[in-house]
Amino acid sequence: MQSRPARTGWTGWGVLGMKVDGVAYRTIWVGKDGWSVEVIDQTRLPHAFETVRLATMEATAHAIRTMQVRGAPLIGATAAYGIALAMRADPSDAALDGAYHMLLATRPTAINLRWALDQMRQHLRLLAPNDRAQAAYERAAAICDEDVAINRAIGENGLGLFRVKTERLGGKRPLRILTHCNAGWLATVDWGTALAPIYLAHDSGVKVHVWVDETRPRNQGASLTAWELGRHGVPHTVIVDNAGGHLMQHNLVDLCIVGTDRVTANGDVCNKIGTYLKALAAADNRVPFYVALPGPTVDWRIGDGVKEIPIEEREAREITHMTGRTADGRIETVDIAAPGSSAANYAFDVTPARLVTALITERGVAPANREGLLGLYPEQRPAAVG
Amino acid sequence: MQSRPARTGWTGWGVLGMKVDGVAYRTIWVGKDGWSVEVIDQTRLPHAFETVRLATMEATAHAIRTMQVRGAPLIGATAAYGIALAMRADPSDAALDGAYHMLLATRPTAINLRWALDQMRQHLRLLAPNDRAQAAYERAAAICDEDVAINRAIGENGLGLFRVKTERLGGKRPLRILTHCNAGWLATVDWGTALAPIYLAHDSGVKVHVWVDETRPRNQGASLTAWELGRHGVPHTVIVDNAGGHLMQHNLVDLCIVGTDRVTANGDVCNKIGTYLKALAAADNRVPFYVALPGPTVDWRIGDGVKEIPIEEREAREITHMTGRTADGRIETVDIAAPGSSAANYAFDVTPARLVTALITERGVAPANREGLLGLYPEQRPAAVG
Repeated sequence: MQSRPARTGWTGWGVLGMKVDGVAYRTIWVGKDGWSVEVIDQTRLPHAFETVRLATMEATAHAIRTMQVRGAPLIGATAAYGIALAMRADPSDAALDGAYHMLLATRPTAINLRWALDQMRQHLRLLAPNDRAQAAYERAAAICDEDVAINRAIGENGLGLFRVKTERLGGKRPLRILTHCNAGWLATVDWGTALAPIYLAHDSGVKVHVWVDETRPRNQGASLTAWELGRHGVPHTVIVDNAGGHLMQHNLVDLCIVGTDRVTANGDVCNKIGTYLKALAAADNRVPFYVALPGPTVDWRIGDGVKEIPIEEREAREITHMTGRTADGRIETVDIAAPGSSAANYAFDVTPARLVTALITERGVAPANREGLLGLYPEQRPAAVG
Repeated sequence: MQSRPARTGWTGWGVLGMKVDGVAYRTIWVGKDGWSVEVIDQTRLPHAFETVRLATMEATAHAIRTMQVRGAPLIGATAAYGIALAMRADPSDAALDGAYHMLLATRPTAINLRWALDQMRQHLRLLAPNDRAQAAYERAAAICDEDVAINRAIGENGLGLFRVKTERLGGKRPLRILTHCNAGWLATVDWGTALAPIYLAHDSGVKVHVWVDETRPRNQGASLTAWELGRHGVPHTVIVDNAGGHLMQHNLVDLCIVGTDRVTANGDVCNKIGTYLKALAAADNRVPFYVALPGPTVDWRIGDGVKEIPIEEREAREITHMTGRTADGRIETVDIAAPGSSAANYAFDVTPARLVTALITERGVAPANREGLLGLYPEQRPAAVG
């Protein structure tokens, strides 16, 4: 089991990874006691960097539900450790099933949650109860390590696309990249999905500038993506979610890249609300629109994303209230809406595959359609009848 | 010269107009002293309803620049009264030209500003200096009255379209209308442009429900449109700017209607940043996208809106900071962005005419193209050579 600094043993990317105040962090790790789980409290960013200790399965479910942890890959990793904590308390079949269902109900849209829980349950069911706790911690750690390796590979595959585009620009100016929400280090165990190629480009001397959509209502762009890009020294500018179309019309965006919470077998992309609007603008202005995803984000069971992916609705208060720092350093929450007006808060939307230029995965780059995905993941191809 | 209650003498719409605490208001009126100009301080809404007395031309310029007044028609009306205040202080040609240029420089995008200033200067130049002050007040009052009459007519023309759509729905549910920014009572002298048909529909028993885009960064939707719809009792729900595409994909929007700051002779529509993204989603989902405008909003001098309309850039603080009410009723401004991250703030974008279903004006409804506009405003047709 790993302990802080969480990146001990990982040498694939040297020491240039995500550091906070000089300490290298993953977004989730096992504490010094060897069994509790620690995460960065993302609801406190960018105003404070605080970690939270999770000592029960219920605490991990709460952390996912309240978005102390968020981002499809990190939700999956946290749920995996939730199962481990449950097994430590009670390794029975009933406890395993109970934990599975409680964790699965925390967030409806991200498919990695179900993927990680299925991985854990299938693995543990075959074991005697007394062996389950240790096996669960090991499997959860493996899911985390696998996420890190996947994201590194996504970064390299995305970097290849960035290099082609940069060469066409002739190095005259930075590559201008627009991203929506946070698909960075903080959304994963490490490196990020959409931001992985950006970090790799920046570290290898490819000049980039990132337009960061603020990403209402929870402002993951302004508060998380801008924060992590800033900590790493990547040039960036925050814009409102309304601005991307204007920037693309005026040739100020070379490419868009986003993460995703679920991709259907047909290549439809479910991601943070507003992604679809940016993809429409990209198509209208012939700007490439890339989606970065790890294999576990594909939901092979469904085809039509608009019809089949459940879209989480969250509380109106996320829209009507905003938390920030006052000039004298206090953290205050203010109501910004007209008194008495209600709000509706849909958390995700679906970008049809026809608007996606390509999918960038750990296995390579493919068109956003069934054949493209099956080309990368041939093990998912239905066995030929014959 | 009019005094509060500002709607004295207006009988066209009975007493059902915009009231605040039981008093009927226009958004701009001449004070009881007979010469100073009073406006509602829109930077204080929705948290406080306060009026501001403007006693100099410089004060009107300041009110426009700081968006105490905003909305293309109201900016024009305020600038007209700015000229009147300038003439009261000094009716010379030099003062007239100075006021013209100072007021014209306050906001670059809304064409009504130039239109109102041209109206005033052309009218006053022909008069002896001693006659200019009174004539300026009279002309400014006429511009205001004309705006009210125009908006009423826009309301009736838009209502015709709403009725057709409502009949197709068979009255089974309210007509679901999406609007962006504030093109209501507060953006004009009275009634509004995009909201005029909504008020008229509501008042005449056509059931409507309005999706109100919050409209970042200045939140004119959540703070002004929601406020004025709420005061008038029109059912509405605030959504983030990211949500419109999802709603349209799921058949939750029957039509979109927005105002505009400038329409080109070709029918391209400049409006609040983000309008273009909603128009793309409307086109992609076959939802009608209407633009409501008074005749003075057409800029007959230009054709290509994306290339030719100057887009105002405002300060980053409008994005990084947010003002609202704390739970205990204080008004606080909080910084919501990652420390050290900069922001870029483009205030408007241009929706190409091809995405606009129709233009709704005081003279009727027309396709968004040169022939459509010239059909409504034949006096703008270049004289035939022959």
